[in-house]
Amino acid sequence: MTDPVNRQILLVEKPSGKLGPEHFKLNTSTIPEPKHGEALLRVRYISLDAANRAWMHGATYRAAVEPNSVMAGGGIAEVVASKAPNLAPGDIVFGDTGWQEYAAVPAKLLTKMPRIEPMTHLLSVYGIAGLTAYFGLLEIGKPKAGETVVVSAAAGSVGSIVGQIAKIRDCHVVGIAGGKDKCHWLTSELGFDAAVDYKDGAVFKQLKAVAPKGIDVYFDNVGGDILEACLPQMNNYGRIACCGAISQYDGAPAAHGPRGVPGLIVVKRLIMQGFIVMDFMKQRDKALADLQGWVASGKLKVQEDVIDGLENTPAALIGLLAGENRGKRMIKV
Amino acid sequence: MTDPVNRQILLVEKPSGKLGPEHFKLNTSTIPEPKHGEALLRVRYISLDAANRAWMHGATYRAAVEPNSVMAGGGIAEVVASKAPNLAPGDIVFGDTGWQEYAAVPAKLLTKMPRIEPMTHLLSVYGIAGLTAYFGLLEIGKPKAGETVVVSAAAGSVGSIVGQIAKIRDCHVVGIAGGKDKCHWLTSELGFDAAVDYKDGAVFKQLKAVAPKGIDVYFDNVGGDILEACLPQMNNYGRIACCGAISQYDGAPAAHGPRGVPGLIVVKRLIMQGFIVMDFMKQRDKALADLQGWVASGKLKVQEDVIDGLENTPAALIGLLAGENRGKRMIKV
Repeated sequence: MTDPVNRQILLVEKPSGKLGPEHFKLNTSTIPEPKHGEALLRVRYISLDAANRAWMHGATYRAAVEPNSVMAGGGIAEVVASKAPNLAPGDIVFGDTGWQEYAAVPAKLLTKMPRIEPMTHLLSVYGIAGLTAYFGLLEIGKPKAGETVVVSAAAGSVGSIVGQIAKIRDCHVVGIAGGKDKCHWLTSELGFDAAVDYKDGAVFKQLKAVAPKGIDVYFDNVGGDILEACLPQMNNYGRIACCGAISQYDGAPAAHGPRGVPGLIVVKRLIMQGFIVMDFMKQRDKALADLQGWVASGKLKVQEDVIDGLENTPAALIGLLAGENRGKRMIKV
Repeated sequence: MTDPVNRQILLVEKPSGKLGPEHFKLNTSTIPEPKHGEALLRVRYISLDAANRAWMHGATYRAAVEPNSVMAGGGIAEVVASKAPNLAPGDIVFGDTGWQEYAAVPAKLLTKMPRIEPMTHLLSVYGIAGLTAYFGLLEIGKPKAGETVVVSAAAGSVGSIVGQIAKIRDCHVVGIAGGKDKCHWLTSELGFDAAVDYKDGAVFKQLKAVAPKGIDVYFDNVGGDILEACLPQMNNYGRIACCGAISQYDGAPAAHGPRGVPGLIVVKRLIMQGFIVMDFMKQRDKALADLQGWVASGKLKVQEDVIDGLENTPAALIGLLAGENRGKRMIKV
């Protein structure tokens, strides 16, 4: 029997342009010893998020990721040893485990999670993705019944839940996604009223056709040209929930912003508001109860995109940035 | 004795680039007869506003101004004849009189004003400018004591009042204006803590020096590069009150927007919110009482820039767009 090792994916270099496999390296090290206050974790699922790429540009709501260290990332893990009073072997936790099989993490940075089946739901509908959709739509977008809600990256982990919650709230819901298959899935499976394929010509015109009363809430996951196409179609007093800007992450930062900012914001009295899901954690229990109720009643469908093997994590992130995934993408470690 | 005539300034052509005197023409016509429900007005003061130029681009919160008609614009006027029950000769009103000496306007589009001296205050501190500053800062910017408030076009009609109200609310106040004289005036006369001269090199660096704790509220009158310089210096949960975008009005519309939108809005959880002062008219009495109190106590200084003669209105607007004015610019008709 060989010594157990800890396989890890290192970020070897910060990309100046597009992210590629050459920016990562598989590494093996020894399994760490937990220090006082830490737990040793066996990582079970690693979350893949567009934000992973944004962290490479510099400090955001967290420190920048640095070259030649284990790539940062959220994960669901099982405690295998603990030097922290509130955690015991067998506990399931969420935290920034990084892209590796084992991690020693201070207990205060970990969130204890319930043991549910499938465990993957802790990263999708009951994880950051589901809570981001819930709070971003309801607290920032504030949709009223009958209003038109548009969401971009609509087939993604957050967008697919945003659209479904907007339907639960009796809105007219339009998803923007890439490709016919995704668009068909949004309307036939998830109950969206319409879908716009951004790979199929002018988003502005397509939107105009399926959102003829204008847009009251735009849940923006992508920024860039699609935000620009939505801005002129916003109704007065519309709300733009700024969740992410995936179109801007993978390449040189600091592209010029969309036209109409701030002119249209003035004239239409729009609110553009950024948010980070962590700011709403006090309301987490209420949100999870709602999400669980909707999942149980079949109103909210959970789509997951689980890829096997730590060694596939870089390719899985690169593919996510290119729009490969449908629903929440994660790695089974 | 000659027949009385109505001198008017017509917009003869919508400018495709910069606004120039060639886009206007002085015209004479007969004095109109008021119809049922209208009042005949003798215009006393015409308000000059950057928005005059924005109206030439197309419909905004009002219809676009059209070529070969009297140029639109707000004015303070005296009723000389009335076919409306609620207005009588001698009444002072505010409304869209257009750039002319006499106008027949439906009474329902006019706001009756008190007869105060100087009458010009009805266009500056107690007019749209003062109310825009008041509501935009207090309702949209929501400054707290000790916070840093930055205002652009700070020596203008709105900006000069915004900064003073922010001082009344015990904020650290920075004005951005063009030229040493204006900047000196802001700090020496109006009590701003600091001023940044945008004509004197990098706004970003200058701001960093005088707003070392970052910006909590940015009152944006200009958009463009100056908004771009402020965005990265916004503190988390900062508020950007989008009042206008004067940098974008005089030339081809639809320039690309500032960098950092929406990326920085997400990361910093910013709110960018557009507003139009008309939306707050229910709270007008409270606002005017506050403004009058501050003027009476000397806490709020009123700066006006009154130019004589209807024939000078085009040049006065062109100059305002170039940043000539200090405080509220208007024409004495």
